[in-house]
Amino acid sequence: MSGRLTVVGLGPGSAGQVTPEAAEAVAEASDLFGYGPYLARVAPRAGQVAHVSDNREELGRARAALALAAAGRRVAVVSGGDPGVFAMAAAVCEAVEAGPPAWRALEIAVVPGVTAMLAVAARCGAPLGHDFCAISLSDNLKPWAVVEARLRAVATAGFVIALYNPVSRARPWQLDRAFEILREVLPGTGLVVFGRAAGREDERIAVTPLARAEAGMADMATCVIVGSPATRIIPREGLPPLVYTPRFAEGAVDRGGEMTGAVR
Amino acid sequence: MSGRLTVVGLGPGSAGQVTPEAAEAVAEASDLFGYGPYLARVAPRAGQVAHVSDNREELGRARAALALAAAGRRVAVVSGGDPGVFAMAAAVCEAVEAGPPAWRALEIAVVPGVTAMLAVAARCGAPLGHDFCAISLSDNLKPWAVVEARLRAVATAGFVIALYNPVSRARPWQLDRAFEILREVLPGTGLVVFGRAAGREDERIAVTPLARAEAGMADMATCVIVGSPATRIIPREGLPPLVYTPRFAEGAVDRGGEMTGAVR
Repeated sequence: MSGRLTVVGLGPGSAGQVTPEAAEAVAEASDLFGYGPYLARVAPRAGQVAHVSDNREELGRARAALALAAAGRRVAVVSGGDPGVFAMAAAVCEAVEAGPPAWRALEIAVVPGVTAMLAVAARCGAPLGHDFCAISLSDNLKPWAVVEARLRAVATAGFVIALYNPVSRARPWQLDRAFEILREVLPGTGLVVFGRAAGREDERIAVTPLARAEAGMADMATCVIVGSPATRIIPREGLPPLVYTPRFAEGAVDRGGEMTGAVR
Repeated sequence: MSGRLTVVGLGPGSAGQVTPEAAEAVAEASDLFGYGPYLARVAPRAGQVAHVSDNREELGRARAALALAAAGRRVAVVSGGDPGVFAMAAAVCEAVEAGPPAWRALEIAVVPGVTAMLAVAARCGAPLGHDFCAISLSDNLKPWAVVEARLRAVATAGFVIALYNPVSRARPWQLDRAFEILREVLPGTGLVVFGRAAGREDERIAVTPLARAEAGMADMATCVIVGSPATRIIPREGLPPLVYTPRFAEGAVDRGGEMTGAVR
């Protein structure tokens, strides 16, 4: 009897974006752990035990899942998007490091998924077509001063910026403050994409200049992508515009691409 | 007769990481465009036309695909990983912007995929568990001075750094120079993950301290992840270590997570 724990990424929400590997990991599990809305996306089969927890209990959920795996069960911890991006894979690692030695001997696997910024980017063109970064705006997880310093650093250096956890009931002002900081560094004509529920029925994609971006345009289900000064918009009559960041930066010498020969 | 063009991400290489949406987009196409090794991963059905191009022809490939879509064909342009990350989605947008007005009227879609850094991260734990960025090391695409400035900016600001296009025959020294720069800012004990062909049969994942990282450990199929000073390693007897970046930064006040309630 050897238990195992798999952290599974279900993608941003549409069934078409769940990888076969993720579906299989869910199907094979004896026990499923997760936040209610994520567990609702998988249909537990007869005999599977669903352990629902709320969204303020990552570490407790990780510990409970590890304890059950150590008892010989095949446990899947489900996560939206990719479980390695501001999500449960790190919580499981934290719990392993602080937990009993037996947890280190477990078979632990992570199944990647399509993370929100990729799904949002796909719905509006290719805003992440050049160097980019992902920042969580939650100051539950780090001091707000760190968030501000990071925003300034990457905006100044020319990165496209994907903002995760942009707002919540407990964090109403952080996103507007982030836009303020970004406006100190970036032109007001810069492009901001608000991508909500990408690929789902209630999807809403909006593009606005940075000068007019405000927190009211986002909710907890939104990933915000702030373009670099190189990011462009292509208007299209009767169709949504395309937003993209060119592959070539100014000053580059085009020696021919190598883009598709390498790993992606 | 209305043509359309879909840019499809096939994920890093294993069939289990191809989303149903991507498989469907490929199956529905009348014409498939792509670099040979990517086209080899899809099995064209009878009646489908495969247009193979080499890896130095992104813009030409994009133009040919758009022209065929404008002529009424259902065209899929296939890409490894996610097509929006240093890949074909931006090339298609560039071609649309510079091309004839008719191309703007086309139905253009992008199907996201699991990008290399997510697949590599999944295979070693959760190194992208906190703020991170993706940088292409190719100075075919931007002046090398920009790469250096960006590396310094993000390393100093505490981001985990995923390096795409780390080396190629035409760019043998850039990765070693990148490590040199990173060693000026980050401790030599920092963790570097070399992830090659994640999820495929010829996968090779290696973890090394930054002090000992060198370009010879990477090839074109490698994504390199450079940890932040917060990134940790959990040794495990007889098992590969877990590498992860904790969700909480020093100085944060834990008010309970919101990690799983929001979009991922």
